[in-house]
Amino acid sequence: MTNAAQEAEARMHGAFDSLDTLDHVALLVKDVAAAVAWYTRTFRCRVIYQDGTWAMLAFRNARLALMAPGRHPPHVAIPREDAARFGPLEAHRDGIRSIYLTDGDGNSIEVLDASSLSPVRGSGG
Amino acid sequence: MTNAAQEAEARMHGAFDSLDTLDHVALLVKDVAAAVAWYTRTFRCRVIYQDGTWAMLAFRNARLALMAPGRHPPHVAIPREDAARFGPLEAHRDGIRSIYLTDGDGNSIEVLDASSLSPVRGSGG
Repeated sequence: MTNAAQEAEARMHGAFDSLDTLDHVALLVKDVAAAVAWYTRTFRCRVIYQDGTWAMLAFRNARLALMAPGRHPPHVAIPREDAARFGPLEAHRDGIRSIYLTDGDGNSIEVLDASSLSPVRGSGG
Repeated sequence: MTNAAQEAEARMHGAFDSLDTLDHVALLVKDVAAAVAWYTRTFRCRVIYQDGTWAMLAFRNARLALMAPGRHPPHVAIPREDAARFGPLEAHRDGIRSIYLTDGDGNSIEVLDASSLSPVRGSGG
C-alpha cells in the first residue's frame, strides 16, 4: 500500500481525530483588498472578515488570513486547550488569546487558546 | 451575532462544503529531522512521510510539509479538479501533478491536480 493510500485509510478510520488542528495560515500582503480580490477570484473561498489591515478567508477545512505587514509575522495557527503552557498569552482585539512560537527555522507558529475561540472553530473546523 | 458565531453556524450548516480545501502548508527548515522532532514534540501530529529532504506531518484537518531549501518555495497547496486551467502541470516524484502560482505579493500557492491525489485526500481530508 502506498503512503497516500495508508494515509487515506488512516484518515477514514478516524486515526487523525485526536490530532491538533491547523486553524489558519496567515500570509503577508501589501494591499488587503487587492489580495482578497485575487484569492476570491482564483479559488472557491468565502470572506468572513475584512478591514483595511487584514482579512480572513474560509476554505472548506481551514482558513487563510491575509495581513498587511507590521502587526504579525506570517504564521500557521494551531488551537490548544493548554496554550498557556507555552508561555504568557496575548489578548487580541477580537478577544482571542494566543502566543507566538518559532520553530527554530524562523517559521512562526501561533498557538491559540482554544477556550477563547468559538466552540465549532475551537473543535477543529 | 458575532463574526465568529456566524462563521461557526455557517460551517455547521455545511455552507463551506463547496469551498476549496487547504491540502497542506509547506515551510522551509534547515534540518528536516530536527524540525520533525520539534513539531512532533510540540504538537499532536503524525509523521506520514520523511526523508532527508522533506517530511509531511498529518494534523487533524490538513497537513504540514517541512522542506529543506532549494526545491520548492514555502507555499499553501490547494487541490482543484481543473488545475490544468491554471497552466502546464508539473509531475512530481510521487506522481502528483501541480502548478505554482504567486498571489502578487510573493506568496506561492501550489494548485494540485485533484485527480492525481488519493481519493480521500483529494476530496478534502
